[in-house]
Amino acid sequence: MDAVARIERALNAAIERAEGPGAPPRLAAAMRHAVFPRGARIRPRLCLAVAAACGDDHPAVSDAAAAAIELLHCASLVHDDLPCFDDAATRRGRKSVHVAFGEELAVLAGDALIVAAFETLTVGAAHAPRRLPALVRTIAHAVGMPAGIAAGQAWESEPSVDLAAYQRAKTGALFAAATVAGAAAAGADSKPWRMLGERLGEAYQVADDIGDVVSGEAELGKPIGRDSALGRPNAALRYGVPGAMRHFEALAAAAADSIPACPGAADLRALTLNEARRLLPKELPSRAA
Amino acid sequence: MDAVARIERALNAAIERAEGPGAPPRLAAAMRHAVFPRGARIRPRLCLAVAAACGDDHPAVSDAAAAAIELLHCASLVHDDLPCFDDAATRRGRKSVHVAFGEELAVLAGDALIVAAFETLTVGAAHAPRRLPALVRTIAHAVGMPAGIAAGQAWESEPSVDLAAYQRAKTGALFAAATVAGAAAAGADSKPWRMLGERLGEAYQVADDIGDVVSGEAELGKPIGRDSALGRPNAALRYGVPGAMRHFEALAAAAADSIPACPGAADLRALTLNEARRLLPKELPSRAA
Repeated sequence: MDAVARIERALNAAIERAEGPGAPPRLAAAMRHAVFPRGARIRPRLCLAVAAACGDDHPAVSDAAAAAIELLHCASLVHDDLPCFDDAATRRGRKSVHVAFGEELAVLAGDALIVAAFETLTVGAAHAPRRLPALVRTIAHAVGMPAGIAAGQAWESEPSVDLAAYQRAKTGALFAAATVAGAAAAGADSKPWRMLGERLGEAYQVADDIGDVVSGEAELGKPIGRDSALGRPNAALRYGVPGAMRHFEALAAAAADSIPACPGAADLRALTLNEARRLLPKELPSRAA
Repeated sequence: MDAVARIERALNAAIERAEGPGAPPRLAAAMRHAVFPRGARIRPRLCLAVAAACGDDHPAVSDAAAAAIELLHCASLVHDDLPCFDDAATRRGRKSVHVAFGEELAVLAGDALIVAAFETLTVGAAHAPRRLPALVRTIAHAVGMPAGIAAGQAWESEPSVDLAAYQRAKTGALFAAATVAGAAAAGADSKPWRMLGERLGEAYQVADDIGDVVSGEAELGKPIGRDSALGRPNAALRYGVPGAMRHFEALAAAAADSIPACPGAADLRALTLNEARRLLPKELPSRAA
């Protein structure tokens, strides 16, 4: 089974648990809307790619880690889209959760997705329970305080913001968790894998910043130019698109170079460069090599 | 060290982790505001009382379970108070989190408290890691979907609601988790402990309904009569205060009677009846015996 099929199956199992006996139907529908149909699934694919490079001896554990990471990513999108944050009407080309189901159910869907992520991790790790504590801690660190997604988002409510700390928490942390958790799920030493996730997270953020500046709404499926409108930090606004492109390419190369020795290192290096390229917006005049 | 001191210490440790290096200061302050100064700490005290009755062989594990439960309770209060739900300006006699810190940070504080709960559980269970999976599953079940707090709150957004299912999820689930997790944290068979939590949860809900009808705002520290204003189900509105009082007393007695054989059963039975009495609003003309 390929990585995407594994991820969709694990995510579907998590949402089916949430839809279990007695579930309020509209919240169940809001959770499904937040997770399906799929986006790029970048983080869980990265998690499974690292697990595969490390031998992937317990696929149920790495599937659970990948699904937990994507559930948390989806939760963060639902809450980020709320009126008090981005007030985004669309996401992945359809209505955002609060537009489709109301603000109350959007708040609750995000909450329930966070809970479902930790539950999923625990259900999946039943096959190798000694790996559970490291997985919970790695993933909690990436989404909570003081340095995870919630912290990153909160920097937008501070009187002054450090661009690097903001992006490391808001975007980088979950990428780093994807590679670290992928290794931990496969029973490997996870420390050498942090750099790959961190560099890809930075590259993703720069690609997103470029996209915000140059892309059309049709491709991204969300309103563009929001960073400028909302006064948010953006590397392409700050350094110009060509400068941001050079930075992006250096980060993708650093990511590939950071991959530690492991059975699947060469394949993963090629995959990393290829995947990084796909992060860039389609209508750029010259794509990164 | 008495139970309250243990709970406050464990909660403080969790919030200090959230306040760690690089934390955005306003979100850190919002989290602390949500958790301190303390409310009644009913659920974590119940958790520790059951752990004590079961021998409490690893106090760090039961402290973590108790703290995780209270962090999740606090998270639910922060989100419940949001403008899209109760729009409550006060909580525990002070400003609610969104009034003190803004709606964005209230959403994020709730999110980060949910994450901190699972992190706390994992840190505490380092002393007995084989107890972690059951604790995560018990507590996740009590707060997520299909039957936890988020599900309970979501019933308010459904076109029709079953009063029993609504209250079981919104209030009963976390009480049941408190007793079940207390036993599991102490390495005991947790199943026989569910009934105690469920009955106390129902009793708490009835006491809260009575309080909503008869109490003054000064005592509760939150606006009263909201159930009526918001068209929410309320046992005291439906059956009258005397009818609701009779129901409350029957539930408290059933809770005490459900306590399974264990070293501390007699003490816990007395404590249960005493604590149940404290749930009732102070200005009731005749208190439950």
